[in-house]
Amino acid sequence: MPSAVSEAVVAALGHADEYPDPKCRRLVGDIAAFEGVPDTHVLCGNGSADLIYRLALAAKPACALMPAPTFSEYADALSVTGSRIRRHLLDPRDGFELDEGFVDAIDEDVEMVFVCQPNNPTGAVTPRSLVLRMLKRCEEVGAHLVVDECFVPFLEDSSSISVAGLVEGHPALVVLKAFTKIYAMPGIRLGYLLCSDKTLVSGIEAAGQPWAVSTLAQAAGSAALGCSAHVEKTREVVARERAFLLEGMSRLGIVAQGCANFLFFQLADGGALAPAMRRRGILIRDCSNYEGLGPGSYRIAVKSHSDNERLLDTLHTVLADGSGSFNHAANMNAPVYGPPSR
Amino acid sequence: MPSAVSEAVVAALGHADEYPDPKCRRLVGDIAAFEGVPDTHVLCGNGSADLIYRLALAAKPACALMPAPTFSEYADALSVTGSRIRRHLLDPRDGFELDEGFVDAIDEDVEMVFVCQPNNPTGAVTPRSLVLRMLKRCEEVGAHLVVDECFVPFLEDSSSISVAGLVEGHPALVVLKAFTKIYAMPGIRLGYLLCSDKTLVSGIEAAGQPWAVSTLAQAAGSAALGCSAHVEKTREVVARERAFLLEGMSRLGIVAQGCANFLFFQLADGGALAPAMRRRGILIRDCSNYEGLGPGSYRIAVKSHSDNERLLDTLHTVLADGSGSFNHAANMNAPVYGPPSR
Repeated sequence: MPSAVSEAVVAALGHADEYPDPKCRRLVGDIAAFEGVPDTHVLCGNGSADLIYRLALAAKPACALMPAPTFSEYADALSVTGSRIRRHLLDPRDGFELDEGFVDAIDEDVEMVFVCQPNNPTGAVTPRSLVLRMLKRCEEVGAHLVVDECFVPFLEDSSSISVAGLVEGHPALVVLKAFTKIYAMPGIRLGYLLCSDKTLVSGIEAAGQPWAVSTLAQAAGSAALGCSAHVEKTREVVARERAFLLEGMSRLGIVAQGCANFLFFQLADGGALAPAMRRRGILIRDCSNYEGLGPGSYRIAVKSHSDNERLLDTLHTVLADGSGSFNHAANMNAPVYGPPSR
Repeated sequence: MPSAVSEAVVAALGHADEYPDPKCRRLVGDIAAFEGVPDTHVLCGNGSADLIYRLALAAKPACALMPAPTFSEYADALSVTGSRIRRHLLDPRDGFELDEGFVDAIDEDVEMVFVCQPNNPTGAVTPRSLVLRMLKRCEEVGAHLVVDECFVPFLEDSSSISVAGLVEGHPALVVLKAFTKIYAMPGIRLGYLLCSDKTLVSGIEAAGQPWAVSTLAQAAGSAALGCSAHVEKTREVVARERAFLLEGMSRLGIVAQGCANFLFFQLADGGALAPAMRRRGILIRDCSNYEGLGPGSYRIAVKSHSDNERLLDTLHTVLADGSGSFNHAANMNAPVYGPPSR
């Protein structure tokens, strides 16, 4: 987390005895300037997860389309509104990439479409041209397209992937953004969305309490937006460490994929890896509960160099320990799928 | 705000780069010990307003009963779920106090009842014996009784008013509490509810994002619970300043009421007071938009002695200025109702 963010929180403590500004006026102005959009197109939330729930409540889509697997909060939020969820199953043989089939799945019944960019947990990036075809199709059928760009700032070509600049003129488009990830402040809770559909934005505001964003988070956000050098450095460190992890895992026979601050891989191990790692003090994300995935699907975080070294060392130990606590080593060198072709 | 709270937030900044504990385990344990209830009966939220919305979403009552006037967030939250809202109109001639008629209004159609204790904005306290009769009636008809006790810690006889100790054994009862008010930390956002209905508590958890309570708020809450001397001092200062305001207003011919950190009064001024005060740099709450109230209804906060002096001085100036910016001074000495008889 940038030190400017901590300093801003400490300074804001002097105003924590007042209610936060429900409109987050200063922060909204700063975000609007940062994103190059009017203030009216910006709405802040208590983390982007807060906005996902409010969005579902405001739009109450009868039917929503999303890939499987993807971030589970979309479906969790839609379950509160009783929406029907249509899942488009991604193919592991294609590296779980979205393709034209997803655009074709946007029919007249669909009222909201969710796309996570890059997809969580698989890390697959959807080309901007394909996102634009989704948007066109959503506009044709009167659906909203929600593009979750919370991890986009980690991508090396983030500006060529983001569709944030298109919200003006495309009221069907909702772009979700978070401070949580790139500024490393998930404990402070701050996210925002960009949308030019005034009715929807008003509905999202009304779908929850007026004081969702704390005084501390508002100050932290404005400070974070000034930390462009920190973001650049974070992106570089994550890129270097991601490459270190990918290479180290490759040497262990594990083919992982990802281009943000997390990596995804599948093993034919029946799900034995996560508990074996946990016994050695490392929690990795068992993704078997994601719709469209099964046992042996894992997500790991790109962390500090020493953490990453420890992860690789422990993976090596677990894989080598064919008997005893981890009994599936024989299968570990048989990845279910290869890396994406592009 | 207690200095221990600020210090806890600063210390917690060191962990703000990690996601907050969705279960708020340490804080829940501290609250449970403070309230004398099991951990399972405690649920934390991003301020009590967050919990009001989640509660509405989890229970989705077909019909909810509440007094008019009362805190507007109950109805705002229920509008998201499309609940029918039945309002029990309070009588200004009784100081807007709840009575047996409210208990009688709890019929088989009612699925949720809201009571604000003391009521916002009128400041009227409902006797505990009447709250218990409401609870009994709710249990008979299968409704939930939500008692909002966010302002109870300001009452001199808070322990004889609160029903928090009854949640064990009364799953129909939901008690809302806030750190916002008595610990003066509304900018940090933290509230909680007490309830022994496990199904409802699980539903409230699922009705929003898992990370609603920030790492900073969790640390602030645990620190605040250790500040009992501060609470006692706050209660004393507020009581002294409340009396100062009541007496000063009485000298101006305004009969106000209240026993927490806010006072309520009505004037036959057509709503002219608020803009006249605003022109002199003081915002008072024009309560004309509360259901059950009309123009000339006002709520003011009990603040520091110098703030309260300034409020009284400005009130005096506005009342004396019968011409020019404030034209309703002739009516200002005619309060609509007197103080409650008990």
